[in-house]
Amino acid sequence: MGAPDRGRSSGQASSTRRQFLLGGAAAGVGAATALGIDYALTRDSGAPVSVPLNGDETVPFYGVHQAGIDTDAQAHAVFVGLDLRADTDRDGLRRMMMLLTDDAARLTQGVPPLADSEPELGAAPARLTVTFGFGPEFVARANGAGPGWLQPLPAFGIDQLQPEYTDGDLLIQVASDDPVTVAHTTRMLLKDSRSFASVRWVQTGFRRAHGTMKPGTTMRNLFGQVDGTTNPTPGTADFDEVVWNTSGWLAGGTGAVIRRIRMDLDKWDRLDRSGRDQSIGRFQSNGAPLTSSPHGEAAEFDEPDFEAKTPIGFTVIPEFSHMARARPVEAHERIFRRAYNYQGPPAGDELSDSGLIFTSYQADVERQFTPIQRRLDELDLLNEWTTPVGSAVFAIPPGCAEGGFIGDTLLT
Amino acid sequence: MGAPDRGRSSGQASSTRRQFLLGGAAAGVGAATALGIDYALTRDSGAPVSVPLNGDETVPFYGVHQAGIDTDAQAHAVFVGLDLRADTDRDGLRRMMMLLTDDAARLTQGVPPLADSEPELGAAPARLTVTFGFGPEFVARANGAGPGWLQPLPAFGIDQLQPEYTDGDLLIQVASDDPVTVAHTTRMLLKDSRSFASVRWVQTGFRRAHGTMKPGTTMRNLFGQVDGTTNPTPGTADFDEVVWNTSGWLAGGTGAVIRRIRMDLDKWDRLDRSGRDQSIGRFQSNGAPLTSSPHGEAAEFDEPDFEAKTPIGFTVIPEFSHMARARPVEAHERIFRRAYNYQGPPAGDELSDSGLIFTSYQADVERQFTPIQRRLDELDLLNEWTTPVGSAVFAIPPGCAEGGFIGDTLLT
Ligand code: HEM
Ligand code: HEM
Repeated sequence: MGAPDRGRSSGQASSTRRQFLLGGAAAGVGAATALGIDYALTRDSGAPVSVPLNGDETVPFYGVHQAGIDTDAQAHAVFVGLDLRADTDRDGLRRMMMLLTDDAARLTQGVPPLADSEPELGAAPARLTVTFGFGPEFVARANGAGPGWLQPLPAFGIDQLQPEYTDGDLLIQVASDDPVTVAHTTRMLLKDSRSFASVRWVQTGFRRAHGTMKPGTTMRNLFGQVDGTTNPTPGTADFDEVVWNTSGWLAGGTGAVIRRIRMDLDKWDRLDRSGRDQSIGRFQSNGAPLTSSPHGEAAEFDEPDFEAKTPIGFTVIPEFSHMARARPVEAHERIFRRAYNYQGPPAGDELSDSGLIFTSYQADVERQFTPIQRRLDELDLLNEWTTPVGSAVFAIPPGCAEGGFIGDTLLT
Repeated sequence: MGAPDRGRSSGQASSTRRQFLLGGAAAGVGAATALGIDYALTRDSGAPVSVPLNGDETVPFYGVHQAGIDTDAQAHAVFVGLDLRADTDRDGLRRMMMLLTDDAARLTQGVPPLADSEPELGAAPARLTVTFGFGPEFVARANGAGPGWLQPLPAFGIDQLQPEYTDGDLLIQVASDDPVTVAHTTRMLLKDSRSFASVRWVQTGFRRAHGTMKPGTTMRNLFGQVDGTTNPTPGTADFDEVVWNTSGWLAGGTGAVIRRIRMDLDKWDRLDRSGRDQSIGRFQSNGAPLTSSPHGEAAEFDEPDFEAKTPIGFTVIPEFSHMARARPVEAHERIFRRAYNYQGPPAGDELSDSGLIFTSYQADVERQFTPIQRRLDELDLLNEWTTPVGSAVFAIPPGCAEGGFIGDTLLT
């Protein structure tokens, strides 16, 4: 360990490309911003300028924690759940994780692994991260102990789980602002996992593209809702407490819950604005709590007033709204959400198969996540329009130092 | 008609957002570039700067031609093939196209249609274009005449067509640099087409994200090849001649061929570099013809020398390579290609289901496209690794002026 905490910065691999000059002197760069985010330059102005491309941006691979959790969510993500092959033993797990770690460490820095037959596709990491997670069977074969919560979630009444989106022994989570990079990286990693594991499920998700919105804008899901407002902030002590596990081989790691939740957009279309706002307890317009103003960006982060009453005596924020039900009852019932949208062809006469790849990270799944999900299962207006169709739990091991490999605290 | 030819420019909808200031004075903007493309600003420099977001960029909707063909290819595209409902008659077609035109005209400018229940999702067009195409049944029900080539392509020996990716009466092609915008726009349009038509197939494709690569970089497909080098250039007389039809109701329109071509990446992985280069007649490294240098960006556009011989007397560019076979034999055998990659979960024991949504536009499909496809069917090294699994032909009607609607030359 001892590697520095990761931040968002540029790797060495991009330094040469940085020198790329767009037809003229590097005028204007000195006046540019240091906000830690890329912005697009207005085009109706003066002389050419030297500027980096987002494709060159890298997120450090080595560190105390794996990247891809406290990383600003990239535009594209693929989650792959794998089944270990029958003959993959502890030694096989170690060899596999050494291989995959080496691939990920290179690809995320824009350096092709040796076996890459399309190195040209990996030349633009665009903030690529690769995050690995272990299912119960992985830990068992590694002769590891716990964590106790590493098992399928309890069965919920709302669930209609399909095996093709449920469980799995190994998680490979690939995220980048570039979809070609995600596609290529996923294949590269699957190639090297092939003799140890087979693909069980694949889920592909998206958010707004890099550069579409003002940086820091909370994402919207396909219901149109601002989704992710009440969430721990990466880089704070609060985040660290909610997310990072501190015991045994998992210290510096976390627990991941990945639930594929179908959102019935056709039914949602028939619900009016007020019904939509009530179902969540927040305005769709700006994401503010119903006890605030539906206008203005700032109101999104106002404290909701759960006591405020309407003239006829109901609470303004309905007790059965998603927000009211999802709020922690016990202080420790907190999670970090990092969801992606999905949309595919319709199965029947609907217009699309749409939903959320709900993804949350928490140090202890049973203690922090399950009570919330249990409450939502009992009662949540949103259940009228949503159905969980997949569910998986993984232990995300800590990051590793250079020379180490992901899972080394469990496998050595 | 008479509307100006469309160019790439910003719509009115973005003017207020443009004023958005990032915490300080607009220093540095005067020194910025006017290359007609957005660049990201280097972050390790001076003061904040006012900059537009790519989400605000719009492509004009009205014009002589529909947008989405001569538009610089956006990062994301969804192609939807629809079947007309049994009772959709000529009048129904007109009502549908008026509705869809109105939706598309608004959405592409970042203005939500009246019926939009998630207007917030449409607020960032990010160069959104919507392009409509008509299949044979559409034109028949409109009592229209021709074009003669508007029918399924002849059956080819290499084809393994699946009905779920083949034919269709109406094409809706949605493309934008933002995947949320594509998802939302697709749904909005399908909502308004619902009483007239049902979804037959959906194909989702991607290229590099906006801002990943230097503008003007030719795309790469998932084989890693530079794909799109020899292609007419939008805005030239050559392009106009290849692409735009000039007769009857289709004047100003074009013909679209959309073929879903599975690329066997697992098999491709087993082919070495030299085999790869030979199969196409170009270097994978930089896309240059095999008679040029495999290094340097400029070489991509070198003229191939089909006569040059190896020391032992073979042509350097193999006669059976894809490029040699795809070259026009007759001068008129030219097409404009605008392909997208696709990658989804594997069906069996492969690592992924990957390929190309091959899309080409040409004034006359039978005269320009079919001879090329026939030659490739007879012989093309690339056929070893590729299989057409879907195929559809559409007539893309011309654009319309404000007050008109797409298809008005056929339907009024
Ligand atoms: C498709 C399914 C879901 C949708 C559309 C959805 C949507 C939302 C929205 C719009 C908010 C309010 C804004 C915000 O604070 O982010 C919210 C809050 C929240 N959701 Fe969900 N959610 C879904 C599923 C879940 C699930 C499965 C869980 C956990 C079991 C969950 C836990 C939470 C929590 C903890 C909050 C914050 C509550 C607070 O204000 O303290 N959500 N969700
Ligand atoms: C998955 C299938 C395909 C792949 C991977 C592929 C790939 C390529 C590549 C790498 C090139 C060379 C670079 C360039 O000029 O763009 C090329 C050229 C070309 N391809 Fe394809 N192609 C495919 C299918 C097709 C089909 C179906 C057609 C038409 C029937 C076609 C027509 C052409 C033409 C006209 C050229 C330019 C040839 C010239 O140099 O004049 N391709 N293709």
